[in-house]
Amino acid sequence: MLNAAASGEDGEGPWWARPDLRFNADGELTLAGHRLGEMAAAHGGSPIFFYNAERVRSKLEMVHGALRRTGLAHRVFYAMKANRFTPLLTYIRLTGLCGIDACSPRELEFALACGFEESDLSYTATSVSNEDIEVLARHPGVLVNCDSLSTIRRLGARCPGRDIGLRVNPGKGVAYGDNRLLQYGGRKTTKFGIYREHFDEALELAMEYGLRVSRIHFHVGIGYLPPQLPMWEEVVGDCAWFVDHAGGIESVNLGGGLGLPHVAADRPLDLAAWAGVIERHFGPRGVEVCVEPGDFIVKDSGVLVLQVNTVERKRQTDFIGVNGGFNLAVEPFFYGLPCEPVPARAEPRGAPRPVTIAGNINEALDVWADGVLLPPLEEGDYLAFINAGGYASAMSSDHCMRGQFSERLLFPRHGAQA
Amino acid sequence: MLNAAASGEDGEGPWWARPDLRFNADGELTLAGHRLGEMAAAHGGSPIFFYNAERVRSKLEMVHGALRRTGLAHRVFYAMKANRFTPLLTYIRLTGLCGIDACSPRELEFALACGFEESDLSYTATSVSNEDIEVLARHPGVLVNCDSLSTIRRLGARCPGRDIGLRVNPGKGVAYGDNRLLQYGGRKTTKFGIYREHFDEALELAMEYGLRVSRIHFHVGIGYLPPQLPMWEEVVGDCAWFVDHAGGIESVNLGGGLGLPHVAADRPLDLAAWAGVIERHFGPRGVEVCVEPGDFIVKDSGVLVLQVNTVERKRQTDFIGVNGGFNLAVEPFFYGLPCEPVPARAEPRGAPRPVTIAGNINEALDVWADGVLLPPLEEGDYLAFINAGGYASAMSSDHCMRGQFSERLLFPRHGAQA
Repeated sequence: MLNAAASGEDGEGPWWARPDLRFNADGELTLAGHRLGEMAAAHGGSPIFFYNAERVRSKLEMVHGALRRTGLAHRVFYAMKANRFTPLLTYIRLTGLCGIDACSPRELEFALACGFEESDLSYTATSVSNEDIEVLARHPGVLVNCDSLSTIRRLGARCPGRDIGLRVNPGKGVAYGDNRLLQYGGRKTTKFGIYREHFDEALELAMEYGLRVSRIHFHVGIGYLPPQLPMWEEVVGDCAWFVDHAGGIESVNLGGGLGLPHVAADRPLDLAAWAGVIERHFGPRGVEVCVEPGDFIVKDSGVLVLQVNTVERKRQTDFIGVNGGFNLAVEPFFYGLPCEPVPARAEPRGAPRPVTIAGNINEALDVWADGVLLPPLEEGDYLAFINAGGYASAMSSDHCMRGQFSERLLFPRHGAQA
Repeated sequence: MLNAAASGEDGEGPWWARPDLRFNADGELTLAGHRLGEMAAAHGGSPIFFYNAERVRSKLEMVHGALRRTGLAHRVFYAMKANRFTPLLTYIRLTGLCGIDACSPRELEFALACGFEESDLSYTATSVSNEDIEVLARHPGVLVNCDSLSTIRRLGARCPGRDIGLRVNPGKGVAYGDNRLLQYGGRKTTKFGIYREHFDEALELAMEYGLRVSRIHFHVGIGYLPPQLPMWEEVVGDCAWFVDHAGGIESVNLGGGLGLPHVAADRPLDLAAWAGVIERHFGPRGVEVCVEPGDFIVKDSGVLVLQVNTVERKRQTDFIGVNGGFNLAVEPFFYGLPCEPVPARAEPRGAPRPVTIAGNINEALDVWADGVLLPPLEEGDYLAFINAGGYASAMSSDHCMRGQFSERLLFPRHGAQA
């Protein structure tokens, strides 16, 4: 599967290949026309993330394009928790295509640092402290969504008369592969949002404190793909109840959670079908529609390049050891969201064979991929882990003091297709 | 169970109470005589870890005491990956009771920074890069253990004549609750160590490069308790084969993995029984015995204090929201190793009832404890999470930009029992 030296528009080659991420005619893996192996080597071989700026822009445009077809007013808020690399966040600001979804005071302040305005910020947090509320009080233009009665009460006491949103919980959720860890709603009661049975009390509380409820917010999943769309539609339908029940709602925020393919068998999310769901439920209601994608915007723009330092067979397993571990990208290890490993050179040294890719952290779970098919690799080669643009560097730790890495924002290289 | 206002030597009170960690006569939770709630409040309420220095010393002494009974020469290397808080690591250096187990170049250099000598350092890493080997070459006194043929080959080429250890893998492992993520050995081939079937090749390679193999190292588990001791004995027995087969071995490093109770039902590890295993297998062989505990030394010295900011019933679940999440202590969330929550004041406002403790990270998995029995809590109260001294701050991330915390090393307060 990785034998194809070139891929792209011809439809040949690996499942993940795109015009901006592919093997060039010399068999070198390129992102936005940049040769990743060569750049990683020039960097000294230590762990480095590359992000394709234009890919981020095009993902934002895809979301806008889909929402435009609903005929509804719409806004996109990028969930910065996915990736807050300063050059990337500044670039996103400059696209003018989105605001920011922030979930903590420091995220809020960092978004402002990168040039976003208060009115560009949607703020939805959980277990909100009084210190958090003080920060919100200093930024009256930020669009705050309250996810508990406690927050309504304390925000109301501190900022009477403010316009707020209510984060609601329909008691249902959707997640990539139905992963338990990723369920934001669902049969089990979660910490997020206000349930239907408490909604009247929430509205009364808001009124008591002079807060105007103009927005309904729900975020009910992560990484959902076509198999989850029917469930997503059911959830959206349930959430419409809150809009109708509250009355006077001007804007509905559908959260994020739009997924992307992680393995060859995954089909991309059908954005037209996704927007169709939105149109069916909110078109007749004439509300503004907001979304907060994070991973969907940045994940497939990013590649983590690591160097192979160990090639060794242990018993019946061929191990490929690399110079970075799970502390640089936790999703493959804890969340079941793999980063497909791709050699930086498609040099066919032989037939692909199953290998296990091991990181350099002294923990048994530190295995990037188990039994994945790769052509023979040698010590010194570079391996690229695709889909490393979201929830990787942003969640990184210095565990074992192996947490150093670099990041680089890439713009199209002359002659490259973005 | 948490109604007891005082506990300690009288044997009354919660399962985790010790002379240095208990409710005082006023019902305040104290560590080394310091009142944690009061100190957290003085700190402003933001997340703060407290570590009892004397507890760390007494754990080191416990390990020494147990090993002393084997009659064998022995050394203890503290696995600094568990907690490298600078004051704590410096204090550990000053106890003179142990060296350091390091697993990365930066750990090695940081241990030196805190006053340890090269000869105090045992270095056992995985997926070792040539850059790592360059650092080891600059520190010829460090006790390096090679865990692959590849490392032997490259270290040998760079540092011929060096004294080395071989990390071996007996193909069996032990872990707290038989947790899959924590298995370092086991039926499945892991990335760690040299298996029996490759051991002759390893010895020949070492000889070829003029490396003298004087140590055998194995680390086969994490968090093991009495139920795992029979399996641990089997593993130790299997590892003795490597000692005999290699010949000329002067020192055996048994790694770490000694567990401690995480919940009321856990019994503490019987160190005498543990040392008995060591004596049975290595006593007749007359080798020096080394161990590398990490968690066992620091975990129960540490407490993370968070502030309750939200008390709210959602459906049938009583949620307690706190101002810190899984990014400050991943073990309860990903590894199934809970940090028992304890109120900073044992004020009996009412009967204990099951609550769910939620962190402030916008992820569904960010729940500290689910259905744990606690007396009624109010917003503004402090909650202490015990057993937060290991693999918590050291693995922390700035996910959602909620990663700020403080740490404080505590020495006994006048009149306090250490």
